[in-house]
Amino acid sequence: MGFFKEEDLKKGSVRLGDDGCSVVILDQTKLPMHQEYLTLRTKEEFYDAIKILAVRGAPAIGICAGYAMYVLSLSRRDLPYREFAAGMKADGEYINSSRPTAVNLSWAIRRQSAVIDAGEGKTVPEVIELLGKEAVAIHREDIEMCGRISENGLSLVKPGDGILTHCNAGPMATSKYGTAIGPMLLGKERGIEFKVFADETRPLLQGARLTSYELERAGVDVTLICDNMASMVMKNGWVQACFVGCDRIAANGDTANKIGTSGVAILAKHYGIPFYTLGPTSTIDMNCPTGDDIKIELRDPEEIKNLWYSEPMALPETKCFNPSFDVTDHSLITAIVTDKGIVRPPFDVNLKKLFG
Amino acid sequence: MGFFKEEDLKKGSVRLGDDGCSVVILDQTKLPMHQEYLTLRTKEEFYDAIKILAVRGAPAIGICAGYAMYVLSLSRRDLPYREFAAGMKADGEYINSSRPTAVNLSWAIRRQSAVIDAGEGKTVPEVIELLGKEAVAIHREDIEMCGRISENGLSLVKPGDGILTHCNAGPMATSKYGTAIGPMLLGKERGIEFKVFADETRPLLQGARLTSYELERAGVDVTLICDNMASMVMKNGWVQACFVGCDRIAANGDTANKIGTSGVAILAKHYGIPFYTLGPTSTIDMNCPTGDDIKIELRDPEEIKNLWYSEPMALPETKCFNPSFDVTDHSLITAIVTDKGIVRPPFDVNLKKLFG
Repeated sequence: MGFFKEEDLKKGSVRLGDDGCSVVILDQTKLPMHQEYLTLRTKEEFYDAIKILAVRGAPAIGICAGYAMYVLSLSRRDLPYREFAAGMKADGEYINSSRPTAVNLSWAIRRQSAVIDAGEGKTVPEVIELLGKEAVAIHREDIEMCGRISENGLSLVKPGDGILTHCNAGPMATSKYGTAIGPMLLGKERGIEFKVFADETRPLLQGARLTSYELERAGVDVTLICDNMASMVMKNGWVQACFVGCDRIAANGDTANKIGTSGVAILAKHYGIPFYTLGPTSTIDMNCPTGDDIKIELRDPEEIKNLWYSEPMALPETKCFNPSFDVTDHSLITAIVTDKGIVRPPFDVNLKKLFG
Repeated sequence: MGFFKEEDLKKGSVRLGDDGCSVVILDQTKLPMHQEYLTLRTKEEFYDAIKILAVRGAPAIGICAGYAMYVLSLSRRDLPYREFAAGMKADGEYINSSRPTAVNLSWAIRRQSAVIDAGEGKTVPEVIELLGKEAVAIHREDIEMCGRISENGLSLVKPGDGILTHCNAGPMATSKYGTAIGPMLLGKERGIEFKVFADETRPLLQGARLTSYELERAGVDVTLICDNMASMVMKNGWVQACFVGCDRIAANGDTANKIGTSGVAILAKHYGIPFYTLGPTSTIDMNCPTGDDIKIELRDPEEIKNLWYSEPMALPETKCFNPSFDVTDHSLITAIVTDKGIVRPPFDVNLKKLFG
């Protein structure tokens, strides 16, 4: 252990309010241009915040739900146990319906429900105290787990390395450190500097709006690129490792993650760069034999055709690398098709013949 | 020859107006939601249209400039030759300054200037007639050249094939057919159907705004994807060939093209898909030994951070493929970094040990 500190409970994108009877979250829909916090007290406020992705990232949602159950229990202090438990159960089901597919949401609510069930025979104030402790435990465990992942990741790189990441697996989606972004933040804490390249991650731009924001705010050297620029950045020798998160790992190691991750892995292999997947062991699904058994969610075409986002996608101070062209090595080209015919390798010999 | 038809001069994104004394261009800044044409008559109108990219694509700019010189000559019919030539030279220099780096712009203006120089001794109306013929010749030659490239490209695929393209090398950037998009349009003319995947091509979205538009309007089966989705589309077995344009080909075959092209080539190689570069022989620079000798233009970071485009980026009827995740094959992953340690291949053996 050792990554958790008491004050961490007061930081991060999800925390118990200073008044002890609310949850304060960083509103992720307003980033990167507005760092606004929402104070949530009612079950409707919790439901909406999760629904509209004001809080997102499975672990962060779980932490939020844990605290939500505690906060909602406070107003039932004077009820008899049976009414208390029935009310809490109804609230839990309601909040759980906000995003039915988010595994950590139902998992956190089940943990709190188990506390309530086990509390039969105790006084209601005693149960409420246990709910508060369980919420903190969920939060603390996530910090510890992210810390260990970050420590392990940090052992794979050396000071000054360039690291490329895709999508967002940072503190906002989890707790302190995050997973794929964790080694960079833990490194920063210890005075180890990296040069990070963040893929913007179309269509929803989590890399631009969230990853580059989190790293910039933490003082990490980050450069935002469009997804299609990763090849050139790697070719330039600027990347020594790729760190990405994961949504599900099959028993053979095939890994589902944000669209585009497999492309980054192929580029990394081509350029001889190590490619690391970072995530908690709870992401490994030993009942899923291979990646072919992972169902991929298809989303609304409008996400590609219309950008819902009318504000800047990254902080004004965020560096970007924006080359207009790149060079495709001749070894990758099957043929060059011209008005004078189709030219095949060896090009250094055969292109000359066009002009012979 | 045989690709050119008289009526082609009346189609396309750049043509002589029906009144014979104007140039009509499709305003590419309004696409894909508004198909608006601009009628250009004065030197200021030509300058502005090229400057703001209402007409873009090096060959299309060349065709526009050829016609522009003819149109501007008409109002000088009654001048003596010397005054006529001096006025035309000034106009040519002015238009050429609209985009100093567009090679075809200065090339077309030089061709028309040569016609004027060679016309000394002829009457001004005779020179004007020759300028008109030269403008048509520039247009006709481009159609023929694109036709031959398209024919050659078409020989490399079979009916029903999936073809992936990046950026825009279609008729709007050139003349009838285009280069990389040419085989799909020529095939369509002959009743040969392909399934085309168009990378949206961040940051400026030429694939979404122009390529998917051109193919949709031509009745070609096109699906728009984000750049980072190409890997999954290839993995699904949907792509039998990649067709891309080129900006400069070095003597050894290394090819500069829109950013992201090299990534497409690496993915294609990984999945065993042929990757074809299509372009005129004038793009081959035998004085440039390798890709390392090609200078890459770096552009404004704002193109990445702010989307200037407030309207839909593709037609409402354009199909999109929008998977939220993809699966990275375990063979591409160097290690899986978890809270319980770093797991290396063989993953089917070593992941089990985590839970042993």
